[in-house]
Amino acid sequence: MKFARFTVDEKVYSGVVTNDGIQVVSGDIFGNWDYTGDVFSSEEVKFLSPLVPNQIIGIGANFVANKEDLPADLPEIPVFFFKPVSSVIGTEEEIVIPAGTEQVKFESELAVVIGKEAKDVPESEVLDYVFGYTIGNDVTAPSFFHQDGHWTIGKSFDTFTPLGPVIETELDPFNIKVKAKLNGTEKQNSPTELMIVPIRKMISYLTKVMTLKPGDVILTGSPVGAELVGAEDVIECKIDEIGTLKNIFTIVKEKTTAS
Amino acid sequence: MKFARFTVDEKVYSGVVTNDGIQVVSGDIFGNWDYTGDVFSSEEVKFLSPLVPNQIIGIGANFVANKEDLPADLPEIPVFFFKPVSSVIGTEEEIVIPAGTEQVKFESELAVVIGKEAKDVPESEVLDYVFGYTIGNDVTAPSFFHQDGHWTIGKSFDTFTPLGPVIETELDPFNIKVKAKLNGTEKQNSPTELMIVPIRKMISYLTKVMTLKPGDVILTGSPVGAELVGAEDVIECKIDEIGTLKNIFTIVKEKTTAS
Repeated sequence: MKFARFTVDEKVYSGVVTNDGIQVVSGDIFGNWDYTGDVFSSEEVKFLSPLVPNQIIGIGANFVANKEDLPADLPEIPVFFFKPVSSVIGTEEEIVIPAGTEQVKFESELAVVIGKEAKDVPESEVLDYVFGYTIGNDVTAPSFFHQDGHWTIGKSFDTFTPLGPVIETELDPFNIKVKAKLNGTEKQNSPTELMIVPIRKMISYLTKVMTLKPGDVILTGSPVGAELVGAEDVIECKIDEIGTLKNIFTIVKEKTTAS
Repeated sequence: MKFARFTVDEKVYSGVVTNDGIQVVSGDIFGNWDYTGDVFSSEEVKFLSPLVPNQIIGIGANFVANKEDLPADLPEIPVFFFKPVSSVIGTEEEIVIPAGTEQVKFESELAVVIGKEAKDVPESEVLDYVFGYTIGNDVTAPSFFHQDGHWTIGKSFDTFTPLGPVIETELDPFNIKVKAKLNGTEKQNSPTELMIVPIRKMISYLTKVMTLKPGDVILTGSPVGAELVGAEDVIECKIDEIGTLKNIFTIVKEKTTAS
């Protein structure tokens, strides 16, 4: 099933995207929910990010170019980072390049949505705690990285985490390709078997540190091919089985009031 | 006013701590709330963290020992980091030292609680967006820091962010001392004027990056004197005008089930 969030006449709805339109649901998509009977067509709605995440956790530099490049030993401590929930936007929204830089980086990623509280989960059971999958664009302003290796500011600007267009609950995450097109030209296209820390291991490791909660989103790393981009560039992150997350980069608007 | 969260017979309440007991309130402490008329005595209740944060943002290495050590120029990009909301506990709860290490570090801090959505706020107006102040203990396991400078895992374990005991809404943050006692011996005691990045500048900077929301907690840095501690050590973080946040360190419980 494909879960979406969207607005019609400024009112926010959740729904299931089907061939017969978007069936509105009410309730908690991670718990009890039901169809309301209302149906909208895709043309009537404006899609939002498919969820308001509880938290967003990313993993750094997690793809190799070719299978033979996969390391024999996995890192003892993977590079994880948090992104603020305030950075989330949906498909077709603008990514704002902050004042002080002209270029930012796109990174197309498979985003795992946790559906159940998860603590100390062995690798073999990790997928039982997954609600579904969406696409994330882990936008980054490298010029705001701290020289001592802290990425926080460079990854935290408002609009820097597009998510969407939907959460697909029936995906096989080991049989997909993570893709990106920049202004129509393919830049990323890798199967998830090129991940250095694979999904089950990544999430099991996290649950040994912290209790994951419904609505936590884990960005599983971006394939080789991400680039610096600037204003008016159009980025389409795509996983065929989920859809296309499309955003345009724009420069920060001049403020009309003094601060 | 001192806002608290607590349980009585396993039911969770919010309340205002007064000399005549804890007056129960209902509603949103950041918006509309009212007294219910119920009153408990401190002896009847078990205090929880005074809020469930929306997000937790910390700043690294933000105190000097003496005023003459304050740098002439502030860092262009301060070292900020996120801690997961799953790491929050209240006063009198146990801090669990994770498997794989025997020592962790305490850090007593003034914690700012944001009360209103804040974006692009000039320094002079920052305090208008603050709901109140509590005490935070930014517990860290340095052995889980990544060699490339990423602190995420070392700061993210469950129980690693004690907050409390209350949120004081009428504090002058520039006229307090941030203290800690380890097993009864004073280890930290510094006025906030020893902060390298001062509170107004810190929060104004953050609002230029991201939209702060009600319930966001900002840990403003820890005075010199933090130490590594181990199991059975007792830490009391104290700001006289707020109260004492007391926790005992314990080792991870052996699991009785195989995983």
